[in-house]
Amino acid sequence: MATLSVQRKHKVTIVGSGNWGTTMAKLVAENTKGNPSLFEEQVQMWVFEEEYTIPKNSRHYNGSDQPEKLSELINNVHENVKYLPNITLPSNVIANPDLADACKDSTMLVFVLPHQFIARTCSQLSGKTLPYARAICCTKGVDVSEKGIQLMSEAIGKGLNIYCGALSGANIASEIAKELYSETTVAYDPPPMDSRHPTPSGSPSSSQVNLINPEIEPGKRSAHLIPLPNEYPPLSHENIRKLFHRPYFHVHLVNDVAGVSLGGALKNIIALAAGFVDGLGWGDNAKAAVMRVGILEMVKFGKMFFGESARTSTFTEESCGVADVITSCSGGRNFRCAKMAVERGESISAIEEKELNGQKLQGTSTAIEVNQFLKSQGKEADFPLFTAVFNILEGNAKPRDIPELIEPKY
Amino acid sequence: MATLSVQRKHKVTIVGSGNWGTTMAKLVAENTKGNPSLFEEQVQMWVFEEEYTIPKNSRHYNGSDQPEKLSELINNVHENVKYLPNITLPSNVIANPDLADACKDSTMLVFVLPHQFIARTCSQLSGKTLPYARAICCTKGVDVSEKGIQLMSEAIGKGLNIYCGALSGANIASEIAKELYSETTVAYDPPPMDSRHPTPSGSPSSSQVNLINPEIEPGKRSAHLIPLPNEYPPLSHENIRKLFHRPYFHVHLVNDVAGVSLGGALKNIIALAAGFVDGLGWGDNAKAAVMRVGILEMVKFGKMFFGESARTSTFTEESCGVADVITSCSGGRNFRCAKMAVERGESISAIEEKELNGQKLQGTSTAIEVNQFLKSQGKEADFPLFTAVFNILEGNAKPRDIPELIEPKY
Repeated sequence: MATLSVQRKHKVTIVGSGNWGTTMAKLVAENTKGNPSLFEEQVQMWVFEEEYTIPKNSRHYNGSDQPEKLSELINNVHENVKYLPNITLPSNVIANPDLADACKDSTMLVFVLPHQFIARTCSQLSGKTLPYARAICCTKGVDVSEKGIQLMSEAIGKGLNIYCGALSGANIASEIAKELYSETTVAYDPPPMDSRHPTPSGSPSSSQVNLINPEIEPGKRSAHLIPLPNEYPPLSHENIRKLFHRPYFHVHLVNDVAGVSLGGALKNIIALAAGFVDGLGWGDNAKAAVMRVGILEMVKFGKMFFGESARTSTFTEESCGVADVITSCSGGRNFRCAKMAVERGESISAIEEKELNGQKLQGTSTAIEVNQFLKSQGKEADFPLFTAVFNILEGNAKPRDIPELIEPKY
Repeated sequence: MATLSVQRKHKVTIVGSGNWGTTMAKLVAENTKGNPSLFEEQVQMWVFEEEYTIPKNSRHYNGSDQPEKLSELINNVHENVKYLPNITLPSNVIANPDLADACKDSTMLVFVLPHQFIARTCSQLSGKTLPYARAICCTKGVDVSEKGIQLMSEAIGKGLNIYCGALSGANIASEIAKELYSETTVAYDPPPMDSRHPTPSGSPSSSQVNLINPEIEPGKRSAHLIPLPNEYPPLSHENIRKLFHRPYFHVHLVNDVAGVSLGGALKNIIALAAGFVDGLGWGDNAKAAVMRVGILEMVKFGKMFFGESARTSTFTEESCGVADVITSCSGGRNFRCAKMAVERGESISAIEEKELNGQKLQGTSTAIEVNQFLKSQGKEADFPLFTAVFNILEGNAKPRDIPELIEPKY
């Protein structure tokens, strides 16, 4: 076999620096260092700049009680003292408060932002990334409303006019930061490149093609995708795996961006259902039953609204499906609050208020948005568990009604 | 549609009267009463006779401290005071210590015996059941050895020369006895009847046909199956469901006897793995990962040794698969003992001895038998998690080696 002469390496930027973002920066930087023929060693991590004072109980407390810039702190002590304390970052993670500068010349953008910052960040970045950059979205959730469903990866892809895949799994960040074993699923499936739509420059290596993204309704959008120049190593599944896979973080690559994205959103509805049933003291059979029924409603949801591109196996066999459901129904926040609500005979919103310092559960908003969408499609009855959770949240059903509400009709 | 004139009803016998057997008798008797056009109301429950003295704390204690016959006690107080105390049985459950008499004229035999009693009971019953009787095996587990795998349902089918299906699910008996919600999976798929092999009597309603049981290797056995006479309502999936389905016990019918049977056996190996990992304090990501990998090894095991008859969906979508794995890895005995062994730094056998009063964990014997079988087939490497569990039990690997041992090779 001929050896391919590759002149350039991929530059990787982590867009986000919270708990999960910093964890991703850590493991990605371990891999860029371990694969010097593919990746530039330095990994930029965009930090939403803020002032932070190192607390006295931090191992980095130096007697100064002056606030410092978080990005400088991170680069000085190699720790995100605010969002991921006590975890040492590799020295090749470079915190950068300048979004455009952090992403400049990057061929791989790893988005790990809170849901609500994605649109704004993309609009700030628009036109400032390489036209042939690729992205992976690690933010869970989807935007669901009466109007339809938009995957986070779609929002990023559209916003930057690049291809964006997705990473999701049974991934509690703090466990991964400690290098405790876990798995994840990465969906990456850029459409095949062709040269039917040559760019003005005429260079075949940057020709624009129609983005035939299978999870976008045909004809609905006409994004364009620029092929990666030949000077770079291909962003194949094999090389994407090398960017994320660690001995403590096993990565499985799939093509199903829709399924991976939906799993991370819909599991929160299931976690509420499992919490309701567990709060009744119904035991392990009942909890497992609700989880199983929920996984099958995920499968049905994917098939009904994303067609064959959402594969059954993504939900039933991958970390982003069954495993994430299991983790979320073990001790996740949605599960715990739903359980507490039933045990104490209070509403979920009362529990949210008392237990979450004003934060909202993701599961409740997802359940409501998904229900609005299902109603608009006339499909509520096809998703009896999702609908039951919504009706319980609205006070129109009781947790003890769940078995009857989800009983299969023959 | 013409109304079918059906002259006979199905008589149902529960073969077994332990915790799970008595629970099955209760729910089946509720259904025979509720479906009088299909089933005789009385349900016989075979009781392995023993003497029992009602303890003073029983609600049925009557001042007598004399031992009584268990079958008579059950029929007098409508409670299995020894094996399912405090649960009232419907009065149409009839305990019967005479095996042949209990099964006489029954068209449906529901086997719920401890594993080790199945062969003996079948040989005692041989020739004494209706030739066209059908059976459902509710005993979990399979017989695995170097020689091969025999499903419990196969052992019953062969032993009595009748067709036998299987019932398995996330089914902790005590929860179902209390009518707490759960689900189960019933596999029932008798081969199509034809009249190529007329019986001596020549009656088309009792003609013998070759039993083409898809989970038995073709040509390996030549059992014969006698069709159910037309006088009975058909034992269709619909009618089988009516025998088992309750508002608190949701039944899903499938055709995959091998898959349903394997799930109930192999889940115990997975529960050990989950317990090992949880005992290390590795958190929820790691536990979910091990469970997911285990479910996929179940799928592979089914496909490799039972061909296409073992369907992926049985393991990934049914109560007997994913849900039973979840329940077993939540608080099951195998999970708990494995976790304890790691936490205390003791061997599983030491834990068994201290915690189980000399009883043995099913998971450890299954893990050893499955390993012997995989070795004999040269297939150990295809099942890294099952093999890791075996090696940990043997002291040849440590729980902390699991991620490396199951890391996918690319």
